[in-house]
Amino acid sequence: MKWTISNSLPISFDIVRSRNVLSLKELDIARKIIIIDHNVYELYKDNIPCDSTINILTINCTEATKGLDNAQLILNFFETKNILRRTEPVIAIGGGVLLDIVGFCCSIYRRGIPYIRIPTTLLSIIDASIGIKTSINHFDRRNRLGSFYPPLMSILDTALIKTQTAREISNGVAEILKLSIVVDETLFELLENNPKVVMEDKFQGDLADQIIDIAINSMISELNSNLWEQQLQRSVDFGHSFSPIIEMKNVCDMLHGEAVILDCLLSSCISFNRNLISQDTLYRIFNLIKSYNLPTYHADFYNIDLLNKALTDTMKHRDNNQFLPIPTSIGGCIIINDLTQDELLLSTITMRQLNNKI
Amino acid sequence: MKWTISNSLPISFDIVRSRNVLSLKELDIARKIIIIDHNVYELYKDNIPCDSTINILTINCTEATKGLDNAQLILNFFETKNILRRTEPVIAIGGGVLLDIVGFCCSIYRRGIPYIRIPTTLLSIIDASIGIKTSINHFDRRNRLGSFYPPLMSILDTALIKTQTAREISNGVAEILKLSIVVDETLFELLENNPKVVMEDKFQGDLADQIIDIAINSMISELNSNLWEQQLQRSVDFGHSFSPIIEMKNVCDMLHGEAVILDCLLSSCISFNRNLISQDTLYRIFNLIKSYNLPTYHADFYNIDLLNKALTDTMKHRDNNQFLPIPTSIGGCIIINDLTQDELLLSTITMRQLNNKI
Repeated sequence: MKWTISNSLPISFDIVRSRNVLSLKELDIARKIIIIDHNVYELYKDNIPCDSTINILTINCTEATKGLDNAQLILNFFETKNILRRTEPVIAIGGGVLLDIVGFCCSIYRRGIPYIRIPTTLLSIIDASIGIKTSINHFDRRNRLGSFYPPLMSILDTALIKTQTAREISNGVAEILKLSIVVDETLFELLENNPKVVMEDKFQGDLADQIIDIAINSMISELNSNLWEQQLQRSVDFGHSFSPIIEMKNVCDMLHGEAVILDCLLSSCISFNRNLISQDTLYRIFNLIKSYNLPTYHADFYNIDLLNKALTDTMKHRDNNQFLPIPTSIGGCIIINDLTQDELLLSTITMRQLNNKI
Repeated sequence: MKWTISNSLPISFDIVRSRNVLSLKELDIARKIIIIDHNVYELYKDNIPCDSTINILTINCTEATKGLDNAQLILNFFETKNILRRTEPVIAIGGGVLLDIVGFCCSIYRRGIPYIRIPTTLLSIIDASIGIKTSINHFDRRNRLGSFYPPLMSILDTALIKTQTAREISNGVAEILKLSIVVDETLFELLENNPKVVMEDKFQGDLADQIIDIAINSMISELNSNLWEQQLQRSVDFGHSFSPIIEMKNVCDMLHGEAVILDCLLSSCISFNRNLISQDTLYRIFNLIKSYNLPTYHADFYNIDLLNKALTDTMKHRDNNQFLPIPTSIGGCIIINDLTQDELLLSTITMRQLNNKI
């Protein structure tokens, strides 16, 4: 005797640009359950309506507190508010950490309640808002628990970026740089030619808008056909092979984009040592990173034992494969699975030399 | 500017019958990560192979401990064992509580790792093994956290039922009775004609096999087109409207099936008072429940305040609708959304009278 259960879950959601999103005017929801980052709330509370339909929980969330404790606070808020299963979508307002935690809580509360993402940082606008991943950190590991769970929609208001610090904006640029190096030469050149313009006006001008739009287009191209990661060989994992463990080790003083871009540089050095990219290309990558005030040096990226430990952990997530994306040109990459110890050591030396030479 | 993310997740898994499933011979997995109910392990440890490929975690799980603490133990085991993301499916062996918890842990660890369900109770063979629901209890509420997450497969070995107590077997029968009342007259008649035969040989004979097969067929017919519960009006929710809160209130002395069947009887009384079923049909239902030694009386089912509280909570899960399935015949039902206080009170009286009269 044998039975087969078989079906298909269609998912679809829009990512829209908007202005003055915190007025919540475009959201036709009778009772609004809002989970908002504490800092964002302090900055923008005067922009958020205050009436009997609004229920706000503010959360302090950073990579260091992206765990079960914050998730429990949020779940408890849902329970206290007696939230309905379908018609009271939770409104998540904050950076990637907040969107990831709230998304995770929504995915598991009553086996899933709807939610809307309102990203408030450059990084979350071009990254956490696009796919369907939710997560929390656990066992001191980044995103060890999570789910694939689409929001009802993501609403992007780039005006919110302007209250970010320069370092936080660079942090967001890092994920755009990552994409540009491995999948989008046009984006790379746009970034290469305009670091001062976009950084000085805090990503508020037409050029910044153009960069964000292209980055989102590129991200969607990479993600849309592989939303549930059935395919473990992913170009967007560039910069995410060695960095997760190192980021968690330095959780109080290294931002996500900083960890990612250091990993991108190390991975580019691996490419260079395989003669897959020229010295000129490697220099262009290095200089682009520098021009957005992102780090090109950190002692942990010269620590072979730590790099090995980090790659071994990442390999569990890639089902015991390295599946390491490395660039083959500006805008192109391959996924390798045969990195050797010698190569890795040599590439840390190349990275060190780059920092000394230029 | 607007983008749309759109895709579809196909899922498919088999439910197969097997014999001597605990030998694990049919599972071609290099390293076997097994989460097994402590009692099942004690009963069957001599049947389970013991070699270097086997990694066992035993869990004490009951409805009272189906929570985050047990989930953390399981997640910690995954982390300690450095489980791969795709090719080391977790093997869950136990009743519905264990299958639900392990399924939940597998659905959130690394955003989902594969798992295989091996149910060891009659109830989990015909219920927890069929759909794609996983869950844990939280905030003293049944299944408040969970996910929709299909297993790789479910393997049913009905020989395992024979070590269950008569009460536990009746507990499993309750969900079969439920199905028979609202969707399957043939199944009802088969149960009605054979209580002694199937109970005396602990569901081991051909007739028991036939009942189980029909129950699974019925369950699949009801679930397969609505796996993610996009549709909140579900016949299989018969018996699950008032019972969840009452079951949790009596978590140490009322079994799931017992709570469900009391709810089925109350819901049938509602039907009777609406003249949707005859007195004869109501008596048949009552007598069938009795004949499998299931309860037809519990003080909590006469407690109007508690019943109201229970229905209100269930309504949150049905997006503020009652969506109460009640029988219209043996094998037929409707979903109502307009139950009144008077009707509910009258039906508790009907239920009391039934118990006094027969």
